[in-house]
Amino acid sequence: MSTAPTRMAAEIAEQPAAAARTLEHLVPLQPRLRELAEDRRRVLLVARGSSDNAAIYGRYLLEVAAAVPAALAAPSVATHYRSRLDLSDCLVVSVSQSGATAEIVETQDWARSCGAATVAITNVDGSPLADAADLSLVTRAGPETAVPATKTYLTQLVALALLADALAPDHALADGLAHVPAAVARLLESDVAAAAEALAAAEQVVVSGRGLLLGTALETALKMEETCLRPVRGYSYADLRHGPISVVREGLLAVLVGSASGPLAEPMADLVRDLRERGARVLGIGGTPTFADLCDLHLAGPDLPETLEPIASIVPAQMMVEQTARRLGLDPDNPRGLRKLTRTDR
Amino acid sequence: MSTAPTRMAAEIAEQPAAAARTLEHLVPLQPRLRELAEDRRRVLLVARGSSDNAAIYGRYLLEVAAAVPAALAAPSVATHYRSRLDLSDCLVVSVSQSGATAEIVETQDWARSCGAATVAITNVDGSPLADAADLSLVTRAGPETAVPATKTYLTQLVALALLADALAPDHALADGLAHVPAAVARLLESDVAAAAEALAAAEQVVVSGRGLLLGTALETALKMEETCLRPVRGYSYADLRHGPISVVREGLLAVLVGSASGPLAEPMADLVRDLRERGARVLGIGGTPTFADLCDLHLAGPDLPETLEPIASIVPAQMMVEQTARRLGLDPDNPRGLRKLTRTDR
Repeated sequence: MSTAPTRMAAEIAEQPAAAARTLEHLVPLQPRLRELAEDRRRVLLVARGSSDNAAIYGRYLLEVAAAVPAALAAPSVATHYRSRLDLSDCLVVSVSQSGATAEIVETQDWARSCGAATVAITNVDGSPLADAADLSLVTRAGPETAVPATKTYLTQLVALALLADALAPDHALADGLAHVPAAVARLLESDVAAAAEALAAAEQVVVSGRGLLLGTALETALKMEETCLRPVRGYSYADLRHGPISVVREGLLAVLVGSASGPLAEPMADLVRDLRERGARVLGIGGTPTFADLCDLHLAGPDLPETLEPIASIVPAQMMVEQTARRLGLDPDNPRGLRKLTRTDR
Repeated sequence: MSTAPTRMAAEIAEQPAAAARTLEHLVPLQPRLRELAEDRRRVLLVARGSSDNAAIYGRYLLEVAAAVPAALAAPSVATHYRSRLDLSDCLVVSVSQSGATAEIVETQDWARSCGAATVAITNVDGSPLADAADLSLVTRAGPETAVPATKTYLTQLVALALLADALAPDHALADGLAHVPAAVARLLESDVAAAAEALAAAEQVVVSGRGLLLGTALETALKMEETCLRPVRGYSYADLRHGPISVVREGLLAVLVGSASGPLAEPMADLVRDLRERGARVLGIGGTPTFADLCDLHLAGPDLPETLEPIASIVPAQMMVEQTARRLGLDPDNPRGLRKLTRTDR
């Protein structure tokens, strides 16, 4: 295994500071967010790739913590089918690290022309996405040079949590958000060596999570795939149970991301039992003590309220992915075939 | 390869009649659908598994053909987080073959308590889902006894198209819908032997489609997985391009479902070129003549308008999955580990 420091590792380690800077910069924008959302009934999120996984967290968080109906847009409806939808009841939130992905910029323009108010979440001030939005929430991750998004993803989650907090009647998330940087810093102490060894050796890997942590599971799978160049499937708990569980067999490593509390915490323990009965090994991240005990391997999750856990639960996953790539002789900073700005079309 | 007739094959072959019966039964309900939707601004779809793939088609079709904003609900928001959302602007459409999946029934009840008008699409008259809905669209697939859903899935698509047609200002889909049974019947003549041989031999399989055909791609992947007991990943075109394409290598068979016309038809041909350059073999279904020529293997798609193609494009996929399972020595009617009624929870 290469032991040279990677930019990806350095960027993972910067996340407590990146989260703190982003909070400091964006909290003052919450009154403007509330104002912009005042006459809107729902939120429509626009994103691709890692940002799409962030948006999935945003969607659950808005519905669960702020009681605001939320959904993800299908960009091709805007960019290719060019449907004229009435979006005058929508706050459209576009999420893009670069703020320059043409498809996302175009979809935001379309949303505005359909009557939506627009918010951009991006790491690049002055980007086309930020400039065209009614309000831009510019994350303060700093420049990210490794291809796999880490600190820009985590700060997107921070921005989405600040959005949900702004729209919630009682600022329910504010206290917890203040503890995010410290919780992220504690997770940087995780020892991921055994997890990386298991991932590098596994014949087949699936990742699953649920509800607020679904986006974390999908992001973990995407990171594994793009950084370790291995096919890894990310599934919602329900989708895994609803069919693909039938292909679980020996040689499979299932990575499950769990909540320490809340209504979805206990069912994850049952999923561990089921998967192990079918011959899979289970690597757990976070979850309840029962969940942790049942797993073959386990990495601690954050000490945060259920609604904010996903901001930090990705950290041990990022660390194990980075280490797995090095074990496999790959350069996590430059996985094959990826550019930092991805064009979907043509 | 076993040559005994399977129930799955018989049920695939019944689809022209099932589609015709469903059309005949549901067209007269369109005025009631319009009435129910009159004061609702948007549609929220509730489903899991194959029905979820049907709902994805419904979502695109509603936005593209009827200009009605549509999205998929996250059932756990209802069943576990128990959020109180204001859904008084929603028509909530629940899709379940059995009409008895507890999670879907519970989510429909929740939606109504949140102010939504409710429509159930199910194959079972008198099921809990049908009984509790404001209006039930009972598909006329007849009893389905093979575990993999085929004719119940296809008739769900018919019901969703009738819904979109009812909500479109100009009944834009009515003419095309009348041709669906004949288009399905023609596809039953497809020779899928070479496709099944390639699938059975492939080290790794991914399926991709886009827009209106995204649900078809995901359903093809799910059918492969549950019937052939092989891990098969389904991706949207954009998600595949946005990362996982980096793991494409020799030994991979990519199944691409294309449109013969419309704004997404041409980009699929470019995806074939990209995948082949990376060493993958491509098995195409439908699409343009250019797309067909570029593919290593190709199955014809239906002769239907772009908006209705997905109802029939699944047919050659079902046929090749059934034959692949038999080639692999499996019984397509009874894949391991699946029950007809799936419980997601606890």
